[in-house]
Amino acid sequence: MRSDIDRIPEYVPGKSIEEIKKKYGLKRIIKLASNENPYGFSPKVAEILKNQYRLNVYPPSDPGELRERIADYIGYEPEMIALSAGMDGVLESVFKMLIDPGDAVCYAPPTFPYYSILSRIYRANEVWLKRNSNYRMAEYVKGAKLTIICTPNNPTGNSEDFDFVREVVESVRGYVFIDEAYAEFAERDMLKLAEYENVIIGRTFSKAFGLANLRIGYGIMHPSLRKAFMRVNPPFSLSSVAISAALAALEDIDWMKETVRKIVYGRGWLHSELEKIAKPVKSDANFIFFETEITSRDLAERLERRGVIIRSLRNFDGAGENAVRVSVGTEEQNKIFIDTLREVLCSR
Amino acid sequence: MRSDIDRIPEYVPGKSIEEIKKKYGLKRIIKLASNENPYGFSPKVAEILKNQYRLNVYPPSDPGELRERIADYIGYEPEMIALSAGMDGVLESVFKMLIDPGDAVCYAPPTFPYYSILSRIYRANEVWLKRNSNYRMAEYVKGAKLTIICTPNNPTGNSEDFDFVREVVESVRGYVFIDEAYAEFAERDMLKLAEYENVIIGRTFSKAFGLANLRIGYGIMHPSLRKAFMRVNPPFSLSSVAISAALAALEDIDWMKETVRKIVYGRGWLHSELEKIAKPVKSDANFIFFETEITSRDLAERLERRGVIIRSLRNFDGAGENAVRVSVGTEEQNKIFIDTLREVLCSR
Repeated sequence: MRSDIDRIPEYVPGKSIEEIKKKYGLKRIIKLASNENPYGFSPKVAEILKNQYRLNVYPPSDPGELRERIADYIGYEPEMIALSAGMDGVLESVFKMLIDPGDAVCYAPPTFPYYSILSRIYRANEVWLKRNSNYRMAEYVKGAKLTIICTPNNPTGNSEDFDFVREVVESVRGYVFIDEAYAEFAERDMLKLAEYENVIIGRTFSKAFGLANLRIGYGIMHPSLRKAFMRVNPPFSLSSVAISAALAALEDIDWMKETVRKIVYGRGWLHSELEKIAKPVKSDANFIFFETEITSRDLAERLERRGVIIRSLRNFDGAGENAVRVSVGTEEQNKIFIDTLREVLCSR
Repeated sequence: MRSDIDRIPEYVPGKSIEEIKKKYGLKRIIKLASNENPYGFSPKVAEILKNQYRLNVYPPSDPGELRERIADYIGYEPEMIALSAGMDGVLESVFKMLIDPGDAVCYAPPTFPYYSILSRIYRANEVWLKRNSNYRMAEYVKGAKLTIICTPNNPTGNSEDFDFVREVVESVRGYVFIDEAYAEFAERDMLKLAEYENVIIGRTFSKAFGLANLRIGYGIMHPSLRKAFMRVNPPFSLSSVAISAALAALEDIDWMKETVRKIVYGRGWLHSELEKIAKPVKSDANFIFFETEITSRDLAERLERRGVIIRSLRNFDGAGENAVRVSVGTEEQNKIFIDTLREVLCSR
C-alpha cells in the first residue's frame, strides 16, 4: 500500500433516494442534495438515446465532433477543448499533468471537497485561502503551482469578482483552474480568462444540461496544455452514448436555457422563503447555502425522516457546524422543502 | 507543468474505421485491431437499453447489485469486488492506492502498453521482466512493490502457467496484479489466486461480454484492499447505462459463452491459415500475435489500403519490428483478412 493512504478522505456522495426510502420506510422522497437538474434533459437527448449503439466497439478517444460543437457553444477553438469523465475527470487530469509531489495547491474552503481529495492523492501541499464575510475569496498565493477557483462556488453559491480572478491569473507564477460547473446559472462567467496560457476553465454537462449520470466534462485550455492533458487523461473517458447525448444537448441550447430560467426563478423564491426562517447566502448557482440554529447533521436527519434529502456540509472543510446546502428543485419540490423545513425548525 | 510530463508516452488506440475510410476512400472496412467482440452483445442488453434512464441524476458510486451479480459469476463475495471504468480504470486505481514514487513496478514486455503509461504517470520505477522463447514470463523480482501479469497476455496471446503465477504471488514482498481481460477465452484462469491478500485480479466486460464502449471493469481483491481502492477510485466511474448493461449481460452468460465458442473456433481456423504464410503464436485470447518478413508498419499500412485494420505493434515495447496482432473476427471477416494478407505477402 502507498504510505499515506490513510490521509486520503473518502468521497461522500449525496444520499440516494433508495437509501432514505429503505431507512425510514417512506414512499415519497425529494432529493435536493446533489445539485441535479430537476427538469431532466432535452427531449432531443431522449430521442438520440433510442439509437442502437455499437457498444462492442471502443468509443473514439478524442471525440472531434463534440469538441467542435462545444467550441461553437463557448466561443473557443476545438484545439482548446479537452474532454473527460465529468468535472471530476477534468480536475484529476489537471492534477496529473501539473502536480509534482509537494507542489502548493491553493483553494478557499468551504468549497468542493474533491479538491482536497485530489490534493492528497497527488501528494500536493494543500494551502487554504481565506474568504471574506460574503464568502468571496480574500487572498491568493503567488508561488502556488495550482490555484483552484470555484465560481459560482460550491457550496456557498456566490460568484467571484471577475477583476479579482484576473488579478490572480496575472499574479501567480503557476496555473489557475476555474471550476465553472455552475456557470450557466450565473449572470457572468470567466470564459474570457481562457485566453491566458496559465488558465484552465472546467465545465460540465452534469448541471444545466441535466446529464450528471453520463459523466461529461471538459476543460478549456491553451493547445499546448491540451496536449499534456491528453497524455494523462484515461484513453476512453466518454462512451458513445455520452458523446451522442452531449451532442444532442448542444443542439437544444434553448431547452437548457429554459430550465435555467425556471431554476433561477425557483432560486429567488426559495431564497426569499429561507430568509424568513434561516440565514441563506445569495446564490448564482442552482443551490442555496444556508445556516440555521441547529447543527447540519441534526437538520439533515430531521428532514430525511420527513422524506427530504438535502446536503449536510459536515464533510466540507470550513463550512462550520450549522451550514447546509439545498438544491433548487421544481416548484412543487421547493414548496415541500420549505414546508418541511418550517415544520422541523418550529417543532423543536 | 509537472517536471516529467515528456516521459509519459501517448496512448495509441487502434485506428478507427472512419479514419481509414477517409484516408483511402474505401467503402468496406474490417477492423480487427482492438480485440472487440465481433458478435456484439447479448440481446438482453439491447432490450434493457430501451429503458428511460434518469440521466440527470448521479449514478450510485458503488453499485451493490452489480457487485452481487459479479460475485455470483466469479465465485467470490461482493466485499471483494471493486468496479471502475474498464480495465484501464481498475489498473489506474491500483496504481493510485499502491505506488509511492520510486516503487518498483515489474512487468514483462511485450505486454499491454498502459502498464508503462501508468508507471510513468505515477512515477514508478519500471522494471522489465524477461519472457521465454514461448513468451511465458521467465522471471520475477522479489522486492517489487507491484508485479503485473497479463494472462492471456496482450499481445502475444499465451497464458501463464498457474503454478508459476502462484510462485510469484507467494515469493514477492509486494502485490501482484493479474490482468485477466481475456480470461473468458482461455481454458484456465487464475481466479483461485484471489484468495491471497496481495493479489488483485482485473476483469472486464469489454471483451467476451462485448461492452467495450461502456467501460466496465472490476477488480477482485481482499476487502481491506477494496477499501483503499474506493478511496482513490473516481466517485462515479460507471453510468447507470453501463451498470444496467453489465447486469443484463450477466443474466445471459450463455450468450457470452456461445460467442466465445465461435471466437475460439475462428481462432483455430485463423491460426492454421496463418501458419501457412506467417509465424503465429498459439493464443488463448481473442487475437493472434504473428510475425512476417516485412515490418509491422508496412504490413499494417498495406492491409489498411485494402480495407483491413490490424494492430501494428510498433508502440508495444519489446514486440520487435515485424510483429502484428490480429483480433479474431466473424467467419467472414477472418476469411477476408486471410485473403488480403495472402495478397499483401505474395504481391511484394
